[in-house]
Amino acid sequence: MSLIVAKFGGTSVASTERIRNVAKRLVKMKQEGHDVVAVVSAMGKSTDELVAMAAAVNENPPAREMDRLLSTGEQVSMTLLAMAIDALGVLAMSFTGRQAGIRTDEAHEKAKIVSIDAERIMSAVNDGKIAVIAGFQGIDANGEMTTLGRGGSDTTAVAVAYGLNADECQIFSDVEGVFTADPRVCPHAKKLDEISYDDMLELSSAGSGVLQMRAVEFARKYNVVIHSRSAFSDKPGTLVKEASMEKAVVTGIAHDTSEVKVTVRSIPDVYGVAAALFTGLAQAQVSVDMIIQNLSNDGLADISFTCPGKDLGRAQEALKKLMPEIGAREFGVDEDIAKVSLVGTGMKSSPGVAAKAFSTLAENEINILAISTSPIRLSVVVRNSQAVDAVRCLHTAFGLDADEVFEETMLSAEEIAAKMAKGR
Amino acid sequence: MSLIVAKFGGTSVASTERIRNVAKRLVKMKQEGHDVVAVVSAMGKSTDELVAMAAAVNENPPAREMDRLLSTGEQVSMTLLAMAIDALGVLAMSFTGRQAGIRTDEAHEKAKIVSIDAERIMSAVNDGKIAVIAGFQGIDANGEMTTLGRGGSDTTAVAVAYGLNADECQIFSDVEGVFTADPRVCPHAKKLDEISYDDMLELSSAGSGVLQMRAVEFARKYNVVIHSRSAFSDKPGTLVKEASMEKAVVTGIAHDTSEVKVTVRSIPDVYGVAAALFTGLAQAQVSVDMIIQNLSNDGLADISFTCPGKDLGRAQEALKKLMPEIGAREFGVDEDIAKVSLVGTGMKSSPGVAAKAFSTLAENEINILAISTSPIRLSVVVRNSQAVDAVRCLHTAFGLDADEVFEETMLSAEEIAAKMAKGR
Repeated sequence: MSLIVAKFGGTSVASTERIRNVAKRLVKMKQEGHDVVAVVSAMGKSTDELVAMAAAVNENPPAREMDRLLSTGEQVSMTLLAMAIDALGVLAMSFTGRQAGIRTDEAHEKAKIVSIDAERIMSAVNDGKIAVIAGFQGIDANGEMTTLGRGGSDTTAVAVAYGLNADECQIFSDVEGVFTADPRVCPHAKKLDEISYDDMLELSSAGSGVLQMRAVEFARKYNVVIHSRSAFSDKPGTLVKEASMEKAVVTGIAHDTSEVKVTVRSIPDVYGVAAALFTGLAQAQVSVDMIIQNLSNDGLADISFTCPGKDLGRAQEALKKLMPEIGAREFGVDEDIAKVSLVGTGMKSSPGVAAKAFSTLAENEINILAISTSPIRLSVVVRNSQAVDAVRCLHTAFGLDADEVFEETMLSAEEIAAKMAKGR
Repeated sequence: MSLIVAKFGGTSVASTERIRNVAKRLVKMKQEGHDVVAVVSAMGKSTDELVAMAAAVNENPPAREMDRLLSTGEQVSMTLLAMAIDALGVLAMSFTGRQAGIRTDEAHEKAKIVSIDAERIMSAVNDGKIAVIAGFQGIDANGEMTTLGRGGSDTTAVAVAYGLNADECQIFSDVEGVFTADPRVCPHAKKLDEISYDDMLELSSAGSGVLQMRAVEFARKYNVVIHSRSAFSDKPGTLVKEASMEKAVVTGIAHDTSEVKVTVRSIPDVYGVAAALFTGLAQAQVSVDMIIQNLSNDGLADISFTCPGKDLGRAQEALKKLMPEIGAREFGVDEDIAKVSLVGTGMKSSPGVAAKAFSTLAENEINILAISTSPIRLSVVVRNSQAVDAVRCLHTAFGLDADEVFEETMLSAEEIAAKMAKGR
């Protein structure tokens, strides 16, 4: 008999009907002999609705009230799930962040978990109950409700799994696990049976949305095994865990169409200019991702960077103020870009990856607009319209293609490119 | 400077726009120099929506989970109201039942308040904040969230006013106060400047829906002055308080069209029959209101009773089982009735009230189907279609008519009778 923590996201509990399905799934686990602790997000879009109501009464709502407001979303889903389990004849008990003993720091709206006192949960589990815990919330040292920030429910699940010393932390979503590439884009994508924490983190940061980075970081720190699997099928998913001995050179390919590229031209090449530029952008809360600098012939430099499209407005405002300061002449924005990243722990010891990637792209007439690397990741920026081709040809070149093909997702490159258009 | 507890019901906070209006009103009180503590219900129909979701996952949801679910409704309205006050530049702080120190017994879904520990609220008030408290909820000795049952927010307000030793407990609703009769029915109805607890309780039990009986009982017990007033006007409303020395004979006239009359015919007139009948009905959770017994010529008795229309199904089922037991031949149901009640503490010492009421009704050709009395109330059951005429002629006969007339509510008796039809 093992202890399983099972986390269900907002989509999985978006309606009372879906909540009943989640209840059936949990009861089945219980009947198979496992001890079961569930962690739930708020129903569907309910958090967005609460945020909209808050915005309607106060443009800048106090964080304490905001946390208390948002925490009601998970309290609704957790009680409904406990009721649905009860209706199936199995005992259940819901727990708020407070009742679950999830203590955080005092940083409202983005609190960090400090400790877990799992005694009450364990007591319920030992009484034969399925414990249902509200994700995304905890209490600070003053007894005030806090929230962990968007996507915090994954982190709650991992933290609870750690606190309970659970055998597995299953995170259910609408995908079957972690793939070598997005199956909607690459029909030959293959589900990975397991992936290391490091590879998962790089894939997440490079645009793969399966798991929250923060939850993976927490799991790596405390060595919690995450099982990423589908809420709508019984198939096993992907285990996220310590790297096994043998490593593939490239584990997977991620793509991200949500970024834009900004180029600041003709900056005097003197000390401190880059520092001034990126300090200014950071102060304007622009999340800069890749940075590329070229020195042009006339002793002036061009600096390009990529950032999320949603930060572009802030970036432009900041740049208008910064331009005279740093003596730059102009800046340009390129929204028609996509980032394609190869990720693999094995890349560290395989020097030929970059060369192979670049020649593969060249053979397929895909122009590289920018390059950035980490020890276990190689990212290239390409035209948005060529992103699908880039993912596919790299996937084949690095031997990731599955024997089976995702027939249902075998769209044409054009169709997928249209889907991947900005603002999707 | 006085301390005011101000309670706003679900209609007053049904939208973010209305919440902003409530915030303005509270800020105005504060700016006039008062200390202000607000108590709020859940927004509009949100409690009904939560109940419906619970019913969709479990026909008989566990009470603990139900209370936790329902308590989220007030947590949403209290945080939004605190945010709206903050947006007007005045400090505000919201309190759940737990944080407000409202301790109850363990009777989930119908908890009774045991004590109030108002220290945290007072501390916020002393810091210059408007405290906003979630109505309808508390915690039991185990730290579990409880709810006070429907209408519990009025009780929260009175209890908090008592706990804080407030100068006044203002209960805001969509009516301007307590009237001598329902102004929608009786255009000459007059707003009362004040009314005694006893009269208010009798009016409430006789069908006047302005204040929750339970809150009035609590206020009487602890001598808390309630100010019932309109959320949509600045006019003073009605003070509910200890009776003043001089008492009107009749304070007001209430009517209730929600009851039905059941007559059990030809029951043997032997000991214990009535006891068996009403014990059976009580066990079936039928709230019996008036009871009338007549002995007919043949030594057999007819027993009639009234009960809420919603209890009729249960009553009929119970009677089918009880009939053979008590030897009764048959029973009939009369749904076309209304109860009209005269209420006044002064009736105790004015023996002519009943006679005057009966002759007034006779002069107006209104047939009396049943009569019941208490020391300070006289209720008659009449045909539903004659209820409006009965209220109006009694209102005039007992000198309650105002000089001013509610023009906007001067509907014809037929129009009002149609409005008052069952199931409205």
